[in-house]
Amino acid sequence: MRRVDLNADVGESFGAYTIGDDAAVLDVVTSASVACGFHAGDPTVMTKTVRAATARGVVVGAHVGYRDLQGFGRRLLAVAPAELTADIIYQLGALAGIARSVDSQVRFVKPHGALYNAAAADPEVARSVVDAVVAFDRSLPLLTLAGSAVVEVAAALGVTTIAECFADRAYTSAGSLVARTVPGAVIDGADVVVARALAMATGEPIETLDGARLRIDASSMCVHGDTAGAADLARRIRAALTAAGVQLKPFA
Amino acid sequence: MRRVDLNADVGESFGAYTIGDDAAVLDVVTSASVACGFHAGDPTVMTKTVRAATARGVVVGAHVGYRDLQGFGRRLLAVAPAELTADIIYQLGALAGIARSVDSQVRFVKPHGALYNAAAADPEVARSVVDAVVAFDRSLPLLTLAGSAVVEVAAALGVTTIAECFADRAYTSAGSLVARTVPGAVIDGADVVVARALAMATGEPIETLDGARLRIDASSMCVHGDTAGAADLARRIRAALTAAGVQLKPFA
Amino acid sequence: MRRVDLNADVGESFGAYTIGDDAAVLDVVTSASVACGFHAGDPTVMTKTVRAATARGVVVGAHVGYRDLQGFGRRLLAVAPAELTADIIYQLGALAGIARSVDSQVRFVKPHGALYNAAAADPEVARSVVDAVVAFDRSLPLLTLAGSAVVEVAAALGVTTIAECFADRAYTSAGSLVARTVPGAVIDGADVVVARALAMATGEPIETLDGARLRIDASSMCVHGDTAGAADLARRIRAALTAAGVQLKPFA
Amino acid sequence: MRRVDLNADVGESFGAYTIGDDAAVLDVVTSASVACGFHAGDPTVMTKTVRAATARGVVVGAHVGYRDLQGFGRRLLAVAPAELTADIIYQLGALAGIARSVDSQVRFVKPHGALYNAAAADPEVARSVVDAVVAFDRSLPLLTLAGSAVVEVAAALGVTTIAECFADRAYTSAGSLVARTVPGAVIDGADVVVARALAMATGEPIETLDGARLRIDASSMCVHGDTAGAADLARRIRAALTAAGVQLKPFA
Repeated sequence: MRRVDLNADVGESFGAYTIGDDAAVLDVVTSASVACGFHAGDPTVMTKTVRAATARGVVVGAHVGYRDLQGFGRRLLAVAPAELTADIIYQLGALAGIARSVDSQVRFVKPHGALYNAAAADPEVARSVVDAVVAFDRSLPLLTLAGSAVVEVAAALGVTTIAECFADRAYTSAGSLVARTVPGAVIDGADVVVARALAMATGEPIETLDGARLRIDASSMCVHGDTAGAADLARRIRAALTAAGVQLKPFA
Repeated sequence: MRRVDLNADVGESFGAYTIGDDAAVLDVVTSASVACGFHAGDPTVMTKTVRAATARGVVVGAHVGYRDLQGFGRRLLAVAPAELTADIIYQLGALAGIARSVDSQVRFVKPHGALYNAAAADPEVARSVVDAVVAFDRSLPLLTLAGSAVVEVAAALGVTTIAECFADRAYTSAGSLVARTVPGAVIDGADVVVARALAMATGEPIETLDGARLRIDASSMCVHGDTAGAADLARRIRAALTAAGVQLKPFA
Repeated sequence: MRRVDLNADVGESFGAYTIGDDAAVLDVVTSASVACGFHAGDPTVMTKTVRAATARGVVVGAHVGYRDLQGFGRRLLAVAPAELTADIIYQLGALAGIARSVDSQVRFVKPHGALYNAAAADPEVARSVVDAVVAFDRSLPLLTLAGSAVVEVAAALGVTTIAECFADRAYTSAGSLVARTVPGAVIDGADVVVARALAMATGEPIETLDGARLRIDASSMCVHGDTAGAADLARRIRAALTAAGVQLKPFA
Repeated sequence: MRRVDLNADVGESFGAYTIGDDAAVLDVVTSASVACGFHAGDPTVMTKTVRAATARGVVVGAHVGYRDLQGFGRRLLAVAPAELTADIIYQLGALAGIARSVDSQVRFVKPHGALYNAAAADPEVARSVVDAVVAFDRSLPLLTLAGSAVVEVAAALGVTTIAECFADRAYTSAGSLVARTVPGAVIDGADVVVARALAMATGEPIETLDGARLRIDASSMCVHGDTAGAADLARRIRAALTAAGVQLKPFA
C-alpha cells in the first residue's frame, strides 16, 4: 500500500495580519511547517499554531526563512554563511521553545521561500542550512526539493532529507520545478491538480512541461493553504488520495 | 566563608553596532545575562557571546525584554499578558537553541530594562514572566530585584528567584532601589561603589539615601560593562571581594 | 444645508499581508488616513493607497502611530517626548514624499490607535504630536476626538483641530467615547449605526450609554473598512446621509 | 584654483547604539550623507545629525539603503524595482521632513552599501534609484561612483550625477574600485592616503593596483568617520588639501 505525507506552510499570520486559513489546512495535512518569526509569524501566532497542529496529531516542523518580514522571505538576502546558520538556529530554538511550552516538539525543518530556492540551488547556502540542523539537532530531517543541492550537502553531513513534490507545479523532464516566471509553471484547474497529486502518490508518471512522462519519487506532498480555494483544493487532494487507498501519514 | 555571584548584561551588540566590552566583562563575572534579540542582540552576537561565556566557565542566562530595539527595551510597552508570555518563551527558546549549538545551556532568566521594572512593580507583568518560565522550564531560576512583585508571584508558582543587588545604586531604607530620576540614585565614585560592594557581599550595612543603615541580602551582585570605565569598576569590585575572602561563584 | 466629511483608515496592508478592502472604502469616504509604515503600511502600499485616493478625489492624511508593527500601534509605548515628535515628523515626511511622487499631498494628520488615545488623554503626548505638526507644517489640521487633551494643546500652539465622531461607538453623557472594555461600547446592528450616523450629521441628539441625549458636534465622521461588513456599512452610511441631503465633503 | 567637496556618511547611530564620531566628522566635511532609518539611523538621530550638520554649514544629503538594519545595508536584498523605488522615496521624504523640522533641506542623494554597489553595477537597480529621485525631486544630484551604471541611467533621465573618489581605496587601471575582497583594496597608512587625496584633488595621477598611473576626475571625495582613527585621517586630509590651496566647497 502506498503512503504519503501531506505538508503545508502554516502560522504565517503576524500580529493583526492574517494569512491563510490554518484551521482548515491543519484538518487536511499530516505535517505542518510553522513560520518562526523571521519572514512571518510571531510568538503568539506560533503558540496557537503549534497547539492547533498538535491537537490534531499533525507533526510540527520549523519553517525557517530570511529575516525579511516586508518581503515575506521571498527576496534573496545575501547573508554571510555563519550568520545564516546562526539565524536558522535561532529560529529552530525559538519554535522548539514555543513547542515545549505546549507539550509538543519540532520534528523537521523546511527552508522557506527565497531560502528554500537558494538552498536548492547554491551549495554554500545549503551548507549553512545543514550546519544549523547539525548544530541544533542532527536527528531532524530536512524537507526539501528532490535532487536539489541541499540533498547532497545534507547526506555528506549525515542529515536526512525528505523529498517533497508539488501537485500544482510543472516539472521539467529532468525532474526539477519549472521556474514560476515561465508560462505554465503553475498548474491551473483543480481537477488537473488532483489528478497529478494522485499520479504522484501512486507512482504513475505525470506529464512534464515539455511533454515527457516523469515519475516523481517523493515522501511528502506540499499543499497550499493561503487562500480559501487552496484549502478546498487540499481537501480534494486528500479525499482523492484516501479514496485511491493511499495512506496519509507523517514522514517524521 | 561568604560567597556571591557576579552578574552582568552582555551580548547587547547588534549587527554592525557594538555595545559594551563583553570580553572584558566575561573575564570578571560568574553569570552572564545574554540579550535574546528583542531589545538587543542578534543570532550571531548571541552565538559568540554564549561561546565566550562558556569558554570562561561563566553561567549563561536569558536576558529577555520587550520587542523594541530602537528603545533598547527601556520603554514600557503594553503587551497583553498571554502575548508577553509567548514573547518571552520565544526568546528563551531562541537562546536555548543557540546555547545548544555551542554545547552550552541556559541556566537562568532575567528580565531586562522596562520589563525588569514592570515585573518588579506590576503583579500582572510578573505573572506573564513567571508563566513563561513555568511553560518553558520551571527549573530555571529568575534573577530579580529583592522584595519585588515577581518574587511573590514566582514563589506561588514554584519558580525559584535569586535576589540581586547593585553596588552602584542608592537604596531606600525600605530596601528598594531609588528611582533613577531622583538625584543621588546612581552612586558616583569608584571607591565608594567598591566599598558598598564589599559591604553588601560581607553582610555589612550600607547607608541608604535617607541616611539609614541597611543590610542587603542578595545572592548575586549586578555589575555593568557597557562602558570602558564600567568594566574597570567590575574588575575592581571582583578584586576587592576576592581580597576580602568572598568566594565568587555562580548561583545557578 | 448640512455637510460632513467621511474619513477612514486605509493603507494598513504590509508586504504580503492585506488588511481591509481599501478600494471599496476609498469609493465611500472623502478623507483617507494613510498608515505611514510604523504601525502598518509600507512604502509600496503607501504609494498605491495615495494614488488610489487621489484618483478618486479623496483627501490624504497621515495616520501616524507608534513604531510597533506586531501590535499594530494599539499598544501604548512609553516614547520620550522629543523622540515621539521626531518619530511623527519622520512619518509625516515619508508620506509627504510618497504623496509628492504621485502628484498628491498630505492634507491632515491623525494619530492612530494607542497614540490617538494617549494624545486624547495625556497632555504631554498631545504636546509631542502637536510639536511634530508645528515643526513639519503648522498649516496641517489634526483630526482628533472632540474635547480631548490634544484639542487644547493644539489651540495653544496655533494648530487647527477637526473633531471627529464615531457612529458605531457609544458615548458617555459627558461626550466622550465609552472605553472598548465596557460592555456596549461598540454599537451592534447596522440599522442602529446608520441611524446614529444620520443623527450625528444632522444635529439630532443620540442616546448615550447611560440613557441621556447628546448632540455631537463634529466635522468628520470616522467609518471603518477593515472588514467586508465594515465597507458595506460605510456605503450604507454614505447613502443614508446623501438621501437626507447631507453634503459629503472633505474638511481639508 | 582647484576645489573639491569632502563627504562622509553620518547619522548611522540607532537608539542606544552609537556608530562614528559625527561631531568630529561634521567639523571636517562639506557634505554629509545622512542615514534614513532603513539600514541605520532613527528619527531622533536624524534630527540631531541634520541639526548638527546645518549648524556647521555642512550640506545634507539622503543616504538611502536597503531595509536591513541587522546587515547595516551591506547585504544585497533582491527588492523588486517598483518596491525599491518606493522604499527610496519613503526615505527621501522622511529625511526631508526631518530636515524641514530643523529649517534645513535635503540637497543630494547617495545610495548606501549594497545598494551603492548594486546601483553602480546593475542598470535595473540604478534605474530604481534614479526613478525615485525623478519622482521625488529631479533637481537633486546623485552622488555616485564615477563611470558606474547609475551615471548613464541618470543622464538618460535628466538627473545630475556627481562623481566621488576614495583616497583610501585602490583603483584598477580602468578607473574602477578594486573589490574589497582583493588584497590591497584598502590603502593602509595615513601618509599614503593623505598623499593620494592630495593627488586626486589636484589632478595628479595616482598609482593603480596594477601599477599604472591614473588621473581621477571627481567633484567629491569620500572620507570615513566610523572610527576615531578615521576622523583623524579626515582631518589630516582636509589640512593637506587646504595647505595645498585646494578649496573645500560643497558640490550642491
